Amino acid sequence: MSIITLITDFGSFYPAAMKGVILSINPQAIIVDITHNIPPGNIRSAAFVLYSIVPYFPKGSVHVAVVDPGVGTPRNSIVISVAGQFFVGPDNGLMIPAASRLGDFEIHKIMNYDLLGEVSATFHGRDVFAPIAAYLSGGMSPQEVGEKTRNYVHLDFGKIEIGTKFISGQIIYIDDFGNVITNIAASDMFKHFQFGEFIRAFDKSIPFFQTYGCVEKRKLLALIGSHGFLEIAVNGDSAAKILKVGSGDTITIKKD
Amino acid sequence: MSIITLITDFGSFYPAAMKGVILSINPQAIIVDITHNIPPGNIRSAAFVLYSIVPYFPKGSVHVAVVDPGVGTPRNSIVISVAGQFFVGPDNGLMIPAASRLGDFEIHKIMNYDLLGEVSATFHGRDVFAPIAAYLSGGMSPQEVGEKTRNYVHLDFGKIEIGTKFISGQIIYIDDFGNVITNIAASDMFKHFQFGEFIRAFDKSIPFFQTYGCVEKRKLLALIGSHGFLEIAVNGDSAAKILKVGSGDTITIKKD
Amino acid sequence: MSIITLITDFGSFYPAAMKGVILSINPQAIIVDITHNIPPGNIRSAAFVLYSIVPYFPKGSVHVAVVDPGVGTPRNSIVISVAGQFFVGPDNGLMIPAASRLGDFEIHKIMNYDLLGEVSATFHGRDVFAPIAAYLSGGMSPQEVGEKTRNYVHLDFGKIEIGTKFISGQIIYIDDFGNVITNIAASDMFKHFQFGEFIRAFDKSIPFFQTYGCVEKRKLLALIGSHGFLEIAVNGDSAAKILKVGSGDTITIKKD
Repeated sequence: MSIITLITDFGSFYPAAMKGVILSINPQAIIVDITHNIPPGNIRSAAFVLYSIVPYFPKGSVHVAVVDPGVGTPRNSIVISVAGQFFVGPDNGLMIPAASRLGDFEIHKIMNYDLLGEVSATFHGRDVFAPIAAYLSGGMSPQEVGEKTRNYVHLDFGKIEIGTKFISGQIIYIDDFGNVITNIAASDMFKHFQFGEFIRAFDKSIPFFQTYGCVEKRKLLALIGSHGFLEIAVNGDSAAKILKVGSGDTITIKKD
Repeated sequence: MSIITLITDFGSFYPAAMKGVILSINPQAIIVDITHNIPPGNIRSAAFVLYSIVPYFPKGSVHVAVVDPGVGTPRNSIVISVAGQFFVGPDNGLMIPAASRLGDFEIHKIMNYDLLGEVSATFHGRDVFAPIAAYLSGGMSPQEVGEKTRNYVHLDFGKIEIGTKFISGQIIYIDDFGNVITNIAASDMFKHFQFGEFIRAFDKSIPFFQTYGCVEKRKLLALIGSHGFLEIAVNGDSAAKILKVGSGDTITIKKD
Repeated sequence: MSIITLITDFGSFYPAAMKGVILSINPQAIIVDITHNIPPGNIRSAAFVLYSIVPYFPKGSVHVAVVDPGVGTPRNSIVISVAGQFFVGPDNGLMIPAASRLGDFEIHKIMNYDLLGEVSATFHGRDVFAPIAAYLSGGMSPQEVGEKTRNYVHLDFGKIEIGTKFISGQIIYIDDFGNVITNIAASDMFKHFQFGEFIRAFDKSIPFFQTYGCVEKRKLLALIGSHGFLEIAVNGDSAAKILKVGSGDTITIKKD
């Protein structure tokens, strides 16, 4: 079993070079594209996507995560090991929420350049992360990649504030349906609200329900998405377009 | 041989969770993305795509089809078995044209929730259909999924009317070239028209030819597409944009 | 090892039929999507993408390349063999730059239609190139496909002119970041320019650096991209949008 997942902001074509490199080193690798359509440079959106999918992959999986505006400048390249899974990418925080979700993790810096061929200044996805992932998926231990470190760039999904009558947070992702995903976890949501109630957000009264089909077509609702966070959606339409909101915007919800 | 195909309207990222679930259950599965860009909620477009590709897959293939605006509301989840292939998804008609194309089919309701983990209210692609498909691809029989049923939601590609001097039908799909695909089958088309003739449609005179290169660049033509249906196209451009038509619109063609 | 890569302008859904055909013939095939988002009919863009990725694939790889506005008209279908890799597609020049990059190549015309099923007039990707690729990946020799030929359609990335004080060339690709990729090779660029200097292009003064992060966010730079060509980029934004340029436009650079 040697699954390698890829998540990047590359769009089409560059990921294929990574796949060629991986299959040249480990022909047994099963490559799974998570997405290559992360908004360019949006590390937090990528972190959210990786966080959402990682519990569904088996032990032994290697996740390559490359949203890397700092490529070729002095920043570390790292391997994170946790619960039998591995994460490979730049040290910019992207992989931290997903790794934390799996448990206590260890980080090794990628220093063993003997493992690599020529390294370009602009495409470490192909020249560094793909080959390291291929070797890890083939059984190489993270110790062989480089020395252990306790220094790394931290990242979370942003602050949330829980008042007596409100919860305030941030929008962290707009999915391809236009669903508005926030950083407010289900457990926080249920402290103040329960299904069937109305909340007030974006100056609108919005019912809080279990699923999209609980409201009529084109109607707003709030729900806990499959990722475990508060999501504002429109049944059969794009909530992001209708509410004119985007990733990074703040959201405050109150009882209505 | 354990091919699992995926067709959804999820766009990027959600399908990856389905792939993680599948590979956790059946590491031998070969996952093939049909498309994840079905227009959101457009069951008939998805049905057309699945119908088009299904004859090209071998026995043993399992097709997971999730365009599912009713997720989490009371609707059945089903497995269709036909000619050694399987279809897994919601009971909303999506899979019926493809299954019918392969022959007489049997339907089993997905009732054996012991096979599943926690089932969310919003993502049965990940929590129900992916694991069931993985088990079927590993050799589980549909009987183990739940009881047989003869009740299901029917769907076809819409009525066509064949008059003495016209054929009237519907647009069922706009492909990524902007080709306009109708529900008028080749066999019906050839009752009234033959290659080299002109037809009248959308208030234009359009030659009926074998392939795109039979007309000059930027010129309209009618042809039988690779899917077996009448298609209106523009050589090197988008017929849908030029004619300003879309999925669901009616089309009437006459001799010109 | 039987890798089959696919590069087309099909967008979604049609490539899936090709994958079904391939896996029906060779269930061991490992299918890698290069991209299906080549601008429709843009043979040179596809040629650039294939050229860029081909050195990263191992011997035995079969590359299927279908940007084929002439499908169904009298044009040859060919197999190119070079350095243990194979290219399968229409004879329109698309595969020539990639094949040349690997060394001296041989071309065989696809003439053995006994290998194929019914061949449609509009989808040779599914009916001709996919099955031939599947057989080659399974060990069939190109000689069995058809006779050798020395006639083929040539294609290159366009002329460049190197003056005493300028280099003039063409834009050959806009990637999904909006980076502007030219046909000016690194070796030509370094004849006149070195890192740290400023160049003049598109009426702007642009620094020539190693990587994106060498300039501030939203600032223009010139660099040698991971593909080995001069690239004009904006750190964290789309250079193509900001400069209002596209594939096929000319570029002239001078010392600033």
